[in-house]
Amino acid sequence: MTVEPYQLTATEALHQIKAGDLTVEAYAKSLLSRIHDRDEVVQAWAYLDQDYVIKQAKALDALPPSERGPLHGIAIAVKDVIYTKDMPTQFNSPIYVNDAPQVDAGSIAILRKSGALIFGKTTTTEFAATTVGSKTRNPHDPNRTPGGSSSGSGAAVGDLQVPIGLGTQTGGSTIRPGSYNGIYAFKPTWNSITREGQKIYSLILDTLGLYARSVADLDLLADVFALADDEPAPSSFQVKGSKFAILKSMVWPQIGAGGSAAVAKAVSLLRAHDAEVEEIEFPEHLNDLPAWHATVLNADGRTAFLPEYTTTKHNLSDYLVGHVENDTKISRKAQLDAFDNIAAARPVVDGILSKYAAVLTPSVPDEAPLGIEKTGSAAFCLIWTALHTPVVNIPGFKGGNGLPIGVSLVAPRYHDRRLLAVSKAVGEIFEEEGGWKREFK
Amino acid sequence: MTVEPYQLTATEALHQIKAGDLTVEAYAKSLLSRIHDRDEVVQAWAYLDQDYVIKQAKALDALPPSERGPLHGIAIAVKDVIYTKDMPTQFNSPIYVNDAPQVDAGSIAILRKSGALIFGKTTTTEFAATTVGSKTRNPHDPNRTPGGSSSGSGAAVGDLQVPIGLGTQTGGSTIRPGSYNGIYAFKPTWNSITREGQKIYSLILDTLGLYARSVADLDLLADVFALADDEPAPSSFQVKGSKFAILKSMVWPQIGAGGSAAVAKAVSLLRAHDAEVEEIEFPEHLNDLPAWHATVLNADGRTAFLPEYTTTKHNLSDYLVGHVENDTKISRKAQLDAFDNIAAARPVVDGILSKYAAVLTPSVPDEAPLGIEKTGSAAFCLIWTALHTPVVNIPGFKGGNGLPIGVSLVAPRYHDRRLLAVSKAVGEIFEEEGGWKREFK
Repeated sequence: MTVEPYQLTATEALHQIKAGDLTVEAYAKSLLSRIHDRDEVVQAWAYLDQDYVIKQAKALDALPPSERGPLHGIAIAVKDVIYTKDMPTQFNSPIYVNDAPQVDAGSIAILRKSGALIFGKTTTTEFAATTVGSKTRNPHDPNRTPGGSSSGSGAAVGDLQVPIGLGTQTGGSTIRPGSYNGIYAFKPTWNSITREGQKIYSLILDTLGLYARSVADLDLLADVFALADDEPAPSSFQVKGSKFAILKSMVWPQIGAGGSAAVAKAVSLLRAHDAEVEEIEFPEHLNDLPAWHATVLNADGRTAFLPEYTTTKHNLSDYLVGHVENDTKISRKAQLDAFDNIAAARPVVDGILSKYAAVLTPSVPDEAPLGIEKTGSAAFCLIWTALHTPVVNIPGFKGGNGLPIGVSLVAPRYHDRRLLAVSKAVGEIFEEEGGWKREFK
Repeated sequence: MTVEPYQLTATEALHQIKAGDLTVEAYAKSLLSRIHDRDEVVQAWAYLDQDYVIKQAKALDALPPSERGPLHGIAIAVKDVIYTKDMPTQFNSPIYVNDAPQVDAGSIAILRKSGALIFGKTTTTEFAATTVGSKTRNPHDPNRTPGGSSSGSGAAVGDLQVPIGLGTQTGGSTIRPGSYNGIYAFKPTWNSITREGQKIYSLILDTLGLYARSVADLDLLADVFALADDEPAPSSFQVKGSKFAILKSMVWPQIGAGGSAAVAKAVSLLRAHDAEVEEIEFPEHLNDLPAWHATVLNADGRTAFLPEYTTTKHNLSDYLVGHVENDTKISRKAQLDAFDNIAAARPVVDGILSKYAAVLTPSVPDEAPLGIEKTGSAAFCLIWTALHTPVVNIPGFKGGNGLPIGVSLVAPRYHDRRLLAVSKAVGEIFEEEGGWKREFK
């Protein structure tokens, strides 16, 4: 079987481009052809200008090798809440239709200089802040949601339309679509990558997220964004003899059959590969973490959406109007208590996590639910967003309807590179033996 | 003596405009004439287009009364690290010379909709992140710094070139120029006003700051930005019978003669007006707050300036290159310890502050130092930036060379409106009896 360029991971495409076996233009054309075939079903893009993609690709091909960056020619999908100076940024909001400020987000400036081919903008929920789905459909079953709010980036990477993508996470907006679309999703430590030029929902929660179909690709991106732990990550992490934990968490009652089975299978696979897996729980005094997250989120939305509320309230969803009007009647005292309680929990949880190679926890309750109106539950993700820890969704498992499910690996803050090294080894096992395989449609 | 429009506070100008006694155009022309007379000396502006100011003013005059906002026609200076869609945003960096993305910061969107006349952009230090002064001079003595990094906004408001201005504070960048320029400066609770569209240095420290020559004007802005405490602020706070504290803090050894005298005078004036003033200190375990602030600042700069470092390192100052390259060798562990220690300190300090009407503390060591190469010491401000508390600089005192010195009033987080009410009463006393008076040059 011939492997088409669009099927390559970023690392593989980079290798071929470097070797002179593939031009950026030919690579871009293969991706565009894949999108041409699939876009009517998946609809991952909020903005995509094919001619401009080719123009950029040609410009990259024309660069002398000495000026090529570490991501030379690699296509990346950008969630449409992140500024790109050459494309509109619309936030899935009528307020910003065709709005195109001439500015790159910090992350985009870094990617562009690194030679990435900024491919287009991908769909999101309104301001990445609501759970009302966009037009995008799950590439593995168009009757289902791809998750949100990073709907388009998750679906595009899952559907082989691009190898890598940018998402964001304030609740579960990176990890959840990662699980639903059967791809790797990486939420790095909070503020380890600049969020300059990315729509604010909550300063203390918002995190840039990364999508790929291999951990090697996430490592490429981690290099470009200069992610650095105190200790260098092991060059080859061995599952055998390592100690993991399974943490079902205080929201385990919300687990579904698919999520439960995926976690059980993950634990048994780790054990089958001679790893130790302990079951642990959060300390009881942290049981309100989900409620604290909700309080901070709502209170921060009160600040974040005041500009849109002031200028064009009628174009803001009722949910976000509610944030600004404080319809849940959160007092400043409650807001500060939640903020401070989460802050106090961070070092406590880091201490627990630091005892293990990584801690396994559900990414989602189950496979992607039916319908594209709602983007699914973030219950299992939002705890980790609040705690600022790095999380990687590892694909490989299968729900009752054959859709992909992932599980999360979590590490203490600023152990991102180590977590990627662990994820690589674990991912090889889960992808091989977990029961779900990506089909090349 | 005729009062020229440029001499009015925002509240006074608003009153005249509402009454039909002053057009926005006439008001703008008076301010521009003041700037014409003074700009050669003060040089507060990074960008000012007089024709565009007049055009905006005429457009505001043409608005029917029903469409006029609460700041109708009020001129505001904008620190040049905050996006304005109709003016360049240059950050005092060669990387962004004449850079004009078509986007308003969240704060600007709110102000514009409220009818404010966005007057121009004011000088800053490089990215509001260094202590190397801009071209701007102290309006009260051109041989001295106006402070930084909100140099231009502080000087412009202090020099009657505009009644109100926007600054930012990550260390002492709002309060310090407030003190040096003899004006009110207000650093509200962290994240109580959106920082969307404002250059990031440190997410957990950066705060939008406000300048005015009266507390009534700060209240106007607080209304527009929907600042709200849990309890309504007293409509008329009485100094008599109230309890204050003086907190000299762990950096008191850095105080100068002027700062020390201002604080002593402030305490004696409060007592003379029948307030109780207790002397308090931070709990000993918080003595490292300044070091924790420095650690967080440097570590966050590592993330914040990676985009500029990646694209155009040669145009970044050595200080900021040092941040990105982590030249102070801050480990992730040290970074997290500092971040978590500050977080744990916040509710502790709120508890202490809540026992008083407000806590008095120095704004700066002394009056503005000689020279414009450096912007002065932020030692007394940065503690409060880290703690997220609201702070108001109250002018009224005088240094050994006759330059203005202010003192700070501090309150627990989200007691911003109460702090303004207290500041109004205290400010009347300090301005009247503190020994320094603004001259109408």
